Amino acid sequence: MRFMSDNTASACPEILAAIAAANRGRVHAYGEDEWSQRLDRVLSDFFGTEVRAFAVATGTAANALSLATLSPPYGAIFAHEEAHIVTDECGAPGFFTGGAQLVLLPGEHGRLTPERFRAALTAHPTHLHSVQAAVLSLTQATELGTSYRRKELAQLAEAAHERGLRVHMDGARFANAVAFLNCHPGDITWRAGIDVLSFGATKNGALAAEAVVFFDRSLVKDFELHRKRAGHLLSKARYTAVQLLTYVEDGLWKRNAGRTNHLAQRIGRAGGQMLLHPVEANEVFLRLGNERRQQLRAGGFEFYDWGPESRGEARLVVSWDQPEEEVQALCEALLRL
Amino acid sequence: MRFMSDNTASACPEILAAIAAANRGRVHAYGEDEWSQRLDRVLSDFFGTEVRAFAVATGTAANALSLATLSPPYGAIFAHEEAHIVTDECGAPGFFTGGAQLVLLPGEHGRLTPERFRAALTAHPTHLHSVQAAVLSLTQATELGTSYRRKELAQLAEAAHERGLRVHMDGARFANAVAFLNCHPGDITWRAGIDVLSFGATKNGALAAEAVVFFDRSLVKDFELHRKRAGHLLSKARYTAVQLLTYVEDGLWKRNAGRTNHLAQRIGRAGGQMLLHPVEANEVFLRLGNERRQQLRAGGFEFYDWGPESRGEARLVVSWDQPEEEVQALCEALLRL
Amino acid sequence: MRFMSDNTASACPEILAAIAAANRGRVHAYGEDEWSQRLDRVLSDFFGTEVRAFAVATGTAANALSLATLSPPYGAIFAHEEAHIVTDECGAPGFFTGGAQLVLLPGEHGRLTPERFRAALTAHPTHLHSVQAAVLSLTQATELGTSYRRKELAQLAEAAHERGLRVHMDGARFANAVAFLNCHPGDITWRAGIDVLSFGATKNGALAAEAVVFFDRSLVKDFELHRKRAGHLLSKARYTAVQLLTYVEDGLWKRNAGRTNHLAQRIGRAGGQMLLHPVEANEVFLRLGNERRQQLRAGGFEFYDWGPESRGEARLVVSWDQPEEEVQALCEALLRL
Amino acid sequence: MRFMSDNTASACPEILAAIAAANRGRVHAYGEDEWSQRLDRVLSDFFGTEVRAFAVATGTAANALSLATLSPPYGAIFAHEEAHIVTDECGAPGFFTGGAQLVLLPGEHGRLTPERFRAALTAHPTHLHSVQAAVLSLTQATELGTSYRRKELAQLAEAAHERGLRVHMDGARFANAVAFLNCHPGDITWRAGIDVLSFGATKNGALAAEAVVFFDRSLVKDFELHRKRAGHLLSKARYTAVQLLTYVEDGLWKRNAGRTNHLAQRIGRAGGQMLLHPVEANEVFLRLGNERRQQLRAGGFEFYDWGPESRGEARLVVSWDQPEEEVQALCEALLRL
Repeated sequence: MRFMSDNTASACPEILAAIAAANRGRVHAYGEDEWSQRLDRVLSDFFGTEVRAFAVATGTAANALSLATLSPPYGAIFAHEEAHIVTDECGAPGFFTGGAQLVLLPGEHGRLTPERFRAALTAHPTHLHSVQAAVLSLTQATELGTSYRRKELAQLAEAAHERGLRVHMDGARFANAVAFLNCHPGDITWRAGIDVLSFGATKNGALAAEAVVFFDRSLVKDFELHRKRAGHLLSKARYTAVQLLTYVEDGLWKRNAGRTNHLAQRIGRAGGQMLLHPVEANEVFLRLGNERRQQLRAGGFEFYDWGPESRGEARLVVSWDQPEEEVQALCEALLRL
Repeated sequence: MRFMSDNTASACPEILAAIAAANRGRVHAYGEDEWSQRLDRVLSDFFGTEVRAFAVATGTAANALSLATLSPPYGAIFAHEEAHIVTDECGAPGFFTGGAQLVLLPGEHGRLTPERFRAALTAHPTHLHSVQAAVLSLTQATELGTSYRRKELAQLAEAAHERGLRVHMDGARFANAVAFLNCHPGDITWRAGIDVLSFGATKNGALAAEAVVFFDRSLVKDFELHRKRAGHLLSKARYTAVQLLTYVEDGLWKRNAGRTNHLAQRIGRAGGQMLLHPVEANEVFLRLGNERRQQLRAGGFEFYDWGPESRGEARLVVSWDQPEEEVQALCEALLRL
Repeated sequence: MRFMSDNTASACPEILAAIAAANRGRVHAYGEDEWSQRLDRVLSDFFGTEVRAFAVATGTAANALSLATLSPPYGAIFAHEEAHIVTDECGAPGFFTGGAQLVLLPGEHGRLTPERFRAALTAHPTHLHSVQAAVLSLTQATELGTSYRRKELAQLAEAAHERGLRVHMDGARFANAVAFLNCHPGDITWRAGIDVLSFGATKNGALAAEAVVFFDRSLVKDFELHRKRAGHLLSKARYTAVQLLTYVEDGLWKRNAGRTNHLAQRIGRAGGQMLLHPVEANEVFLRLGNERRQQLRAGGFEFYDWGPESRGEARLVVSWDQPEEEVQALCEALLRL
Repeated sequence: MRFMSDNTASACPEILAAIAAANRGRVHAYGEDEWSQRLDRVLSDFFGTEVRAFAVATGTAANALSLATLSPPYGAIFAHEEAHIVTDECGAPGFFTGGAQLVLLPGEHGRLTPERFRAALTAHPTHLHSVQAAVLSLTQATELGTSYRRKELAQLAEAAHERGLRVHMDGARFANAVAFLNCHPGDITWRAGIDVLSFGATKNGALAAEAVVFFDRSLVKDFELHRKRAGHLLSKARYTAVQLLTYVEDGLWKRNAGRTNHLAQRIGRAGGQMLLHPVEANEVFLRLGNERRQQLRAGGFEFYDWGPESRGEARLVVSWDQPEEEVQALCEALLRL
């Protein structure tokens, strides 16, 4: 029973069916096909504002290309110290931007606070010997399975904009945040001041599809050239685009996120006192200790240790295709511990 | 009737079926799945030698990551002046290598000659004010639809190796070359001295899958880290790997390439005196002149103009899923011109 | 008797005297000193228009920083195939721009022609698969010791500007061109459409000082940040600035360039039929053949072979501190050959 | 009375005299001159071991080129959060390495402790989703005017080497540390496990000269190519080299550092309870508060505020050419506060 990551999940049948349906005849390549051409329209409707949207195949590409569009090579990118761009992308932001520097901030439950961010911005030098504050990158839902509230996002974005920074959102699990907050997708993006969103679909049911969504279309500039020269413009682009269209238009995003959030909350409740962070998406973090980690594993449950060995923490992630019985079994096992 | 590019093609039913078959349950992500783990074995068998193989989703990624592994930032990469890496990848080699410089060489029918390459190498400075000769990149089949013979490749590779350069092959249409030459895949790669191959599948029937194949495994070094930080390690890696496995194991590569080569040759014959280059893959280049280009288009045929407007040239590419009737119609139209 | 390069020269006594005169007390660092602060004024007067000027210590830095300001990472930089940025800077343009691609053009006597450049521009693709035409880089005086006439420069710049490119001039030997053409420095720069000039002083008598001069001040943008992060902002900046001030204000540039041009012309005349290029600066290129090269060297003359061994060519450069007797001896030796 | 930075200082008369003495005749350029050729020998004698040494003109170049030699683009560079490479080089390490990521550690008085560094290393992931631990960069003397003891350095270097990292030392004020510790230069470099040193001379009396010193010569590799393509190989290299030779051979390094250390200690004693860090080099940090900062400035003393405004801290730096009377006046003013 695998609770390692939502990356271990399969692709939704609806996604495969849509790929198959698009698999007819010779169509223009490199995004000139009818599916790619519909992306802007469909995502504009989804977010309730006019956007420009670009498909890529990986979340690292979506994030790094976004950051390269927003930050000059001498930029400073502010992020939570546990953000994916910091810990899990092998330095992609540095590569794509040509050397921008990450400024890492702590924050409880994976969230930055407006206060701390403002303080960091104030302390950040503006003279030419320093990297120049350029981007605030937020993760929604966060790496610790929590979700920013709209107001928090708005305050963070306001603090950034006041100083001329741009705001990027890593939305690898964006759908989970929307489902948890039970809000409109626009509420926690452009209405809160987000400029560019990495809108993930892969973790939540797609095969390999993420969209870079520009709410401020003046920022698009040469994004397409960056994408091309980074090898992230797919030739048979219809197959990536159709995944995104299906994900949004069929309501897959919500159905899957709602289900995984719900199952994660059950696990969180079963975790009881061991729970480390509020369950506001599809991830559950527990302080199990070594012995109980071993017991769980002996019971057939697979998951990642989290953080330093000594803390004895574990991360359990619910995938969209996780059988309910596996969750049930996990809850029972946790209660038995 | 679309003869613009093999990128306009759909994906083979066998490829989609294989993806669907792999779409079961939660498996390890990022290449730790059983399909990805079989890549080395299957491609070693295919090439008849022990290789290391890595899947990516685009040809630009395959080429640029290969070059970044073979060339230092201060390297010189020798290539035909019409190579894809020169004209169609928006500077990806420069981006991935950190600034390596392309050294462009002319050559009839898209092919470099050993003589010219040797002369260029001899003329290339070795002092520290110059970029340092690092890589020879060859395209097989070439951008002009021709194929190097094994002996030519061996001579080119030998000239490169003598001076300590490494040899990369852009094999976006590798299968077409093998089918045309009716040889073993090893004959025109490692047996001829190729060190690293971008082994394309997308153009010839896959959905989005290319393999970087290292024949000299000592060169792999940190390829995986480069791939990861460039955003080219797919999380649900099984779906890319299974395409490559199917492409090779089911003989799709040969079946499709054989068919498109054959159809292209028919078009070439119909082109008669207008034919610009021998048809040794699935591409046909014709000197039509403006009037005949218009006539063909009026007849419902879509294709790209090639080269400077004044030369009146056209490129016609046969896709794996091109209906035979379309080829027949094109041949008749050409004969009528 | 050393005729290898004007880089072998010493520094003018006036330059050393000016450094010594500036060597008093503690002054603001990093360009906030009074000498650096005067650069804009003094160079604006020199060029007869309002410029922004920035000091660096090497010509490669001046060129590469200029190009990085004018070209995006996905840019194409058009240059003569023998330009210094192409052959002698170890790929610096690629490094500083983040991977821009050089487009090399031939041209007699080291000069590009407007016709050929226009043709290359027309042929250069504009689609997003190609690097985007961004900069024309001209060398004045050229690497082959010739000088563009004002009209040629104006035509070249016009062709560039029409297509939205910017024009950079590598003026490592700019003073020699002005002296040869007997024109105002503005005539062959901003009045001819040059946007940014690498204004060299080192070869012509300074110790280590070059200025990047922006005629279009809107292009300066973040030049200072690029210079800083490339390590090219000197802390004790007064010593670089004072060299440039002295070079310009004391007329050193003209005195030295006039003298070396004059001496080079004497050598050129002595070279007679062996002369390869008109002598329009301080360099002389001769087709000597191997035997005569050996004879000259046996006579105590040091110089570089030029081009492929088989052509038997030689480059002889006159330095500002070259004793007239050495030139006299060289002329006599050439006449004896 | 300027106590802003040792970068405001002039150059020693001995340095200027040596430049003038080297200013004779035409010599080989780009480091082939006799002065540059002596650098390895003289610095090997200075450090008591065989080294390779390369001259550059700025500290940022020395640091960034060192780091680019030691770290791959996907490397992690561990450093104190107040290190110059972190706060004052505008992202140069990211630029030169192609995107390596800084890992910042706190540490009292500007010093890292072996314990904290070991903990950070242990916590740093090794999987391919993370940047790979590559370099430990230490500053000696530190940015807060303190000096590591030899044993601390050895423990830090040992922790780094155990995990395969390389150790870089930013020695912009190296001479001050040696003078304070009253040790042999080898004691706090190669004998303590330092692999590469940025050996600064500019702040301590040179005009513009720093040496990159490789104690492990196997690491030099392509340093010279990196230096060239970064524009940091000076053409008239004799003038940089001769500064370094004079600095070392004439004992300037020690004389100047001893004097400024001594004067700084006087200021430190006058600072009394306001002193923030032990004075172990030529810098003094005081908690003055805003009122006393104003008073001092009203008294004619120039210095930088340090850290956040609210902390009311000040940095006072003694330059090699600081008149003793200015120090005396400063001490008296501090005692009066």
